[in-house]
Amino acid sequence: MALDLISVDDHVIEHARVWTDRLPAAMQEQGPRVVEADGREYWLFEDQRIETMGLNAVAGKENKEFSMDPVRYEDMIPGCYDPVQRARDLLADGIRASLCFPTFPRFAGVRFLDATDKALADACVRAYNDFMLDEWSASVPGMYIPMVIGQLWDPPAFAAEVRRCAALGARAISFPESTHAIGLPSFHDRHWDPVWEAVTETDTVVCMHIGTSGQSRSPSPDASFATEIALSPVNAQITLTDLLFSAIPHRYPTIKMAMSEGGIGWVPFALERADRTWEKHRFWAEVGNLPPSEVFRRNFWVCFIDERLGVEARHHIGVDRILWECDYPHADTPWPESQRDVSQAFKGIPNDDVAAMTHGNAENLFRWTERPDPARIGATLPA
Amino acid sequence: MALDLISVDDHVIEHARVWTDRLPAAMQEQGPRVVEADGREYWLFEDQRIETMGLNAVAGKENKEFSMDPVRYEDMIPGCYDPVQRARDLLADGIRASLCFPTFPRFAGVRFLDATDKALADACVRAYNDFMLDEWSASVPGMYIPMVIGQLWDPPAFAAEVRRCAALGARAISFPESTHAIGLPSFHDRHWDPVWEAVTETDTVVCMHIGTSGQSRSPSPDASFATEIALSPVNAQITLTDLLFSAIPHRYPTIKMAMSEGGIGWVPFALERADRTWEKHRFWAEVGNLPPSEVFRRNFWVCFIDERLGVEARHHIGVDRILWECDYPHADTPWPESQRDVSQAFKGIPNDDVAAMTHGNAENLFRWTERPDPARIGATLPA
Repeated sequence: MALDLISVDDHVIEHARVWTDRLPAAMQEQGPRVVEADGREYWLFEDQRIETMGLNAVAGKENKEFSMDPVRYEDMIPGCYDPVQRARDLLADGIRASLCFPTFPRFAGVRFLDATDKALADACVRAYNDFMLDEWSASVPGMYIPMVIGQLWDPPAFAAEVRRCAALGARAISFPESTHAIGLPSFHDRHWDPVWEAVTETDTVVCMHIGTSGQSRSPSPDASFATEIALSPVNAQITLTDLLFSAIPHRYPTIKMAMSEGGIGWVPFALERADRTWEKHRFWAEVGNLPPSEVFRRNFWVCFIDERLGVEARHHIGVDRILWECDYPHADTPWPESQRDVSQAFKGIPNDDVAAMTHGNAENLFRWTERPDPARIGATLPA
Repeated sequence: MALDLISVDDHVIEHARVWTDRLPAAMQEQGPRVVEADGREYWLFEDQRIETMGLNAVAGKENKEFSMDPVRYEDMIPGCYDPVQRARDLLADGIRASLCFPTFPRFAGVRFLDATDKALADACVRAYNDFMLDEWSASVPGMYIPMVIGQLWDPPAFAAEVRRCAALGARAISFPESTHAIGLPSFHDRHWDPVWEAVTETDTVVCMHIGTSGQSRSPSPDASFATEIALSPVNAQITLTDLLFSAIPHRYPTIKMAMSEGGIGWVPFALERADRTWEKHRFWAEVGNLPPSEVFRRNFWVCFIDERLGVEARHHIGVDRILWECDYPHADTPWPESQRDVSQAFKGIPNDDVAAMTHGNAENLFRWTERPDPARIGATLPA
């Protein structure tokens, strides 16, 4: 029987009119729009030409082509930017719900933080969120768990946007895995309190995707880029440890944070190490009054694509902390072979644990029990 | 019965006359010497005052005092700087051999890389190595596995020093875990070939201690310092992955590299992730023709102090890849309770595996079968 999958980390490729459809006329000339130039397509935003059309949107291609980003929509399969076609792609692979991060805005809207005109940036954030809620998620009811972004330069505005979107059905925000790395106050600054208050009040999950801040824990600068790919989960480990030792989960004990695309196999060691450090150094360091592993099991979730060792070590992580992700349409995705790859990772694992990790934990965390109607969009399901 | 321990990561605190005893008279005025000033002791080197007298030399103190570095020799227990007293300390804890990293020169001699006068720096490197070979190690035959440093600014001179010291009994060099981070060509530059040639020719182990390059994979800059301690093994993971995907182990297939104080619990995940990346991206990325896990099991070793989960996961690492370390006299050391703490980590583990990890692998890697004579120095052993 097919596994019943919810993916908590996929990526929207925004179509060309997401902002032109929504920004006030006066802002359209500076807002994000797609132009044709030099034999390819580009995004233009304010005075900048942005080359990323479909960051790593390689689903459907061969491994050998993985190093090349598409330069036009027609280089991508339609599921990248068309939510109905994507739903067909995912449902055929046994995936019945999906949480999608933005691409043009960068994973957590950092693109708009960098904008010169902050009134325009504010309108762009709201336009993206409206697109996510009214268009992308609404197109296939039950399929897309709405995730939104915020005004990173203005925590009270961000908090208001969290509340506005939560009322419209948003279940998650995408937040940078390091605010310090993007030139803002760190997690240890009370600057962010309005955001933490809004997400706890609305039961909105804070998703932190690796690479969001643009910070790379790179090895030698002239190492193969594959080295950086292999090391990318280190970013999640650093973020998690930073947060475990921060005041945030102590001051907001109901906050929910998920480390997206960070993997899970490193978690048992990271918690053992954090607890050992806490035990040894809490007499002089300000590290909270609970062992980090207890904080983890109350406030954090981690996500994996197809790790075997992490699944085996699930009891050292917490079976209820583990979420599955597909990463469609990026190079790491197992799509269209998620059933085959995920079955391998779960071989011999008890059914209840598989159910928790494949969909049960995601249903609980994101309060997502709706299901799409495959017949309505002419989708086929796996056997 | 007591565990038979070899520690592959301890730290010498150099006594005040290490360089003044050995440098030519003309160099003594600029060479490292200890002075009394402002109510404490300092090292002076060239025109610099260096505050570190006994970096983290807290052995024998309570946890609450761990944040304070000693400022005079008399603040430390004599085992920090006296090799005979240290041998008594270690033997009483069941540790019969020890590999020591330098302190004043920094872990891999980076202090001398930063010197203005490179002729002086060269003499300082050789003086440290002579101290390690003729004084520290010679004081208790069989106790100290000699580890030396090199002229980081001059790979051919470094290679010559490796050969000179190997002929005098050196078994290891301390090398930065990132050469790029200290302003030198990275591991991916053939600049370092003379060193790799010398170490493979002489069967000298390249030990890379976390923190050697001064590079920290820090979380937020205002995080508790405990966060950085908890994350320090990430440095070893980054270095290992950088090296696994580099040309070094492919071009020097007999090279031996140990990640010191990096822990072991992260290794199964890091190898699974590296293999997955290699499998998926080797068609376009230059990442060698062997899976990283196979390179690891041929060329690399990892070290731990008292992890339980890493020991449980030993078969995913390679039982023959794992070395034990005491980290005397730093805050992480279990001394004087190594027997108690290490026994916990090894509870229920088969004797052969325990023997390999506690001493057998270290004996093989460092070719160290000598044993000290406890009676000669009036040492007592554990029951």
